Amino acid sequence: MKIKTQVCIVGAGPSGLILAHILYQAGIEAVVLEKNNREQILNRVRAGIIDQNTIDVLKAIGFSDAFKKQGVIHEGFNLVFDNQCHRIDVNELTGGRNVALHPQQEIVKDFLTHRESLNLPLIYNVQNITISNYETSPTITFNSGDEDYIMNADFVIGCDGYHGVCRPTIPKDKRPELHKDYPFSWLGILCESPRVSEELVYASHTSGFALISSRTPEIQRMYLQCPKHTNLDDWDDEKIWHELELRTTNDSGIKLVRGKIIKKDIVSMRSFVCERMRAGKLFLVGDAAHIVPPSAAKGLNLAVSDVCLLSKAIEHYYQNNSSQLLDRYETDALKRFWRGEEFSNFATRLFHQPVDGNSFHIRQQSSALRYMINSKSAARSFAENYSGIPQEFYSYT
Amino acid sequence: MKIKTQVCIVGAGPSGLILAHILYQAGIEAVVLEKNNREQILNRVRAGIIDQNTIDVLKAIGFSDAFKKQGVIHEGFNLVFDNQCHRIDVNELTGGRNVALHPQQEIVKDFLTHRESLNLPLIYNVQNITISNYETSPTITFNSGDEDYIMNADFVIGCDGYHGVCRPTIPKDKRPELHKDYPFSWLGILCESPRVSEELVYASHTSGFALISSRTPEIQRMYLQCPKHTNLDDWDDEKIWHELELRTTNDSGIKLVRGKIIKKDIVSMRSFVCERMRAGKLFLVGDAAHIVPPSAAKGLNLAVSDVCLLSKAIEHYYQNNSSQLLDRYETDALKRFWRGEEFSNFATRLFHQPVDGNSFHIRQQSSALRYMINSKSAARSFAENYSGIPQEFYSYT
Repeated sequence: MKIKTQVCIVGAGPSGLILAHILYQAGIEAVVLEKNNREQILNRVRAGIIDQNTIDVLKAIGFSDAFKKQGVIHEGFNLVFDNQCHRIDVNELTGGRNVALHPQQEIVKDFLTHRESLNLPLIYNVQNITISNYETSPTITFNSGDEDYIMNADFVIGCDGYHGVCRPTIPKDKRPELHKDYPFSWLGILCESPRVSEELVYASHTSGFALISSRTPEIQRMYLQCPKHTNLDDWDDEKIWHELELRTTNDSGIKLVRGKIIKKDIVSMRSFVCERMRAGKLFLVGDAAHIVPPSAAKGLNLAVSDVCLLSKAIEHYYQNNSSQLLDRYETDALKRFWRGEEFSNFATRLFHQPVDGNSFHIRQQSSALRYMINSKSAARSFAENYSGIPQEFYSYT
Repeated sequence: MKIKTQVCIVGAGPSGLILAHILYQAGIEAVVLEKNNREQILNRVRAGIIDQNTIDVLKAIGFSDAFKKQGVIHEGFNLVFDNQCHRIDVNELTGGRNVALHPQQEIVKDFLTHRESLNLPLIYNVQNITISNYETSPTITFNSGDEDYIMNADFVIGCDGYHGVCRPTIPKDKRPELHKDYPFSWLGILCESPRVSEELVYASHTSGFALISSRTPEIQRMYLQCPKHTNLDDWDDEKIWHELELRTTNDSGIKLVRGKIIKKDIVSMRSFVCERMRAGKLFLVGDAAHIVPPSAAKGLNLAVSDVCLLSKAIEHYYQNNSSQLLDRYETDALKRFWRGEEFSNFATRLFHQPVDGNSFHIRQQSSALRYMINSKSAARSFAENYSGIPQEFYSYT
């Protein structure tokens, strides 16, 4: 089958679906290609926290109601160290900015069902994608089920994640890539137990970092810093609960309630960036171009930031027949990425126990944590990064 | 000769002399021991910047006039990167706090001549110090010239620097020490050339860090990041001026003027802390207990902070026959040290080029510098550390 469209979006994750929606609103045709089936993409458990920038985007593009139904605004978070719990009032520190608990699969479901209700094209089970001629006039071939497709598009957008096909389409010598590894991972659990705190609890403890998050009032998501290459079999339920309780012990009444662990997984910690986010008519978005460690919950938000920049640039292209904003996309997106990456690294260093037991690091960390509690400006700096740096920050070039 | 005194202060650097002066004001006897002669201590070229906490101490103990004569208030500093110069308005950001250019040897001269005018004891050329019985009732033996001395004191205070005799008096297994090394040093020059800027210029450049400071309108002090173990012979004047000009180039008219280089030296970069700052009646102050890298000009200021805590504690001891504050000295002093150390490390990472050329580091550094220019809270956090964290910050325990 032959298809012609304006924008081919590879990947029906949150960035692909949000981009498709914004383009639709601007009257621009897009076809979304997804290698998995519908059920699979609806059940990917990923990020849970969106920042104010992402909240604003969802509202601006008509998803206020969906957000209100599923999203829970958090005006702050709890920081536990030295057995004491301190609340960081993000809203007050930033003059009204927040984050929200809004699990990624809910965002995917909202945008997917909306797309379906409008009968807009999305092809599942896409295999064997090839992208040719992307410098000038892209041709995309693939198959889905028994059907072979040839698609011509003005643009191809890689929203297909770190393991996707779009980035490797650019020759290796034309895409400088930087990797950074961390010597620990997170062990994550989903469990059936009551919510212990309205807001997230970040704990920095001599035994390691812990994070208490939530999915619903009945289902909680919690994480433990664990050694890299941890084998899940080494962590029985008793050990997991023991460590979670130990690391989050505090004086303010936030107390874990044990429950049935319904899922265990390892979340890897790494940083990655492909400094080539555009090659001709091929653009990379979100995880396809960059990964941050999950410590500051920035991954999804940086992807949405890319979507905003790129959708504006594509609109500008069709409205003004000008590639001015397309030409700036890579530079602008990388600036935002590096802010998020630097902050994610800062949060990682602040919260995690160094695996080599480096005493200098531990004492500095302890001083930095106490400083954040005592200094409005330090807390405000953390809060403004956590809730998403506003666009006007990037006016400096 | 036998001497009996209340407080034996080892070292006639700024911390020893300031401590002796504060004790004198409180009516407490002190004898200062100094291994060098008068001329030598008056000619040690060291730190040039004092922060608001130190300024306040000098004023509170009656050295306003001396400070006014020699000190030059700086309400901010200049930050050069990407060939642009940005002024950080420390005064405005902190609500009125400053730093001052006030070379250490001027402070030493002021306190020394004042001590001499009062005929208070200070013994030069002190050799072969031994300190015994420091846990309960210290005895200090030494000689100066041909004279042998035995001194009994209630307290011995080590203001004798990293290489002094006081710290090693405490057995190695009773003083945990932490060291941190940096892979670069500073090459410093004193030169005869006009002042190019009223305030300091910190430059972060791909060729490395540079700092333009001043001593007098005619004598300037400048620094260049250089490889560790740099041989001064490898740096002729032309190379030094070339690198200084290259790294500090900016768009705002701050431009070096070459002059005669009258001194070249290497300033080592390291962090060190002895976590035992008190053993019985023996106390360590300043460099004797801890060293920070010079990047944020905190060394002298942390020493003065120790002096304040300890002088209050000694006064409290004699007035109330209570060791309550003496017992807190180590804990309180280490808290202040770690804040200064963490900030000095932050400034070091922010300004210096990583020697391994780590691209992740460089990109994050660049983002952090831009962030500091764009975010009031980030700039304020830097400014409040730079001008000295006020004491009330440490009320949190």
